Amino acid sequence: MSGERLSNAELDDLLETLEGWEKVEGREAIQKTFVFADFVDAFGWMSKVALTAEKMDHHPEWYNVYKTVEVVLTTHDADGVTGKDAELAKAMDRMAQR
Amino acid sequence: MSGERLSNAELDDLLETLEGWEKVEGREAIQKTFVFADFVDAFGWMSKVALTAEKMDHHPEWYNVYKTVEVVLTTHDADGVTGKDAELAKAMDRMAQR
Repeated sequence: MSGERLSNAELDDLLETLEGWEKVEGREAIQKTFVFADFVDAFGWMSKVALTAEKMDHHPEWYNVYKTVEVVLTTHDADGVTGKDAELAKAMDRMAQR
Repeated sequence: MSGERLSNAELDDLLETLEGWEKVEGREAIQKTFVFADFVDAFGWMSKVALTAEKMDHHPEWYNVYKTVEVVLTTHDADGVTGKDAELAKAMDRMAQR
């Protein structure tokens, strides 16, 4: 996927295709809070995401407390949300469903 | 280690024995920012800490962006910093040194 910044319209289109992702107030970024059964479940998911993120060379900002993980995605190089964020968001959703 | 809340004096003593940990403003908690070489190094450390935390049944609040991990430790049950936080902080420091 492209590393170019999505326009507002493209970003709105993207958010309609994703489940539970929303714009971050005051930043060009998207966010979602994932809640798992417990810490093992949450960190297991983070580990899978970490391998994918490293392979993509595109990393999340994320905050974990026990079974909750708050994720923010943005592409620093592009100063906004790009196709890379869309790809990582979709991968995160897929991995959370398993 | 004890799960009882440390007094202010005990907390100050603890912080003198730890490297780089400080009180959190406005909360009974301690914090430290760990900076690693890259994401693999940072997440590798988080994985080791996660196994220890799960074994202790005592989990950090932590925020990761690429090679940086900001950690906050507190014991929710005790409404403050306890020996469990001290133990986890020391384990984190040991694992970061390897």
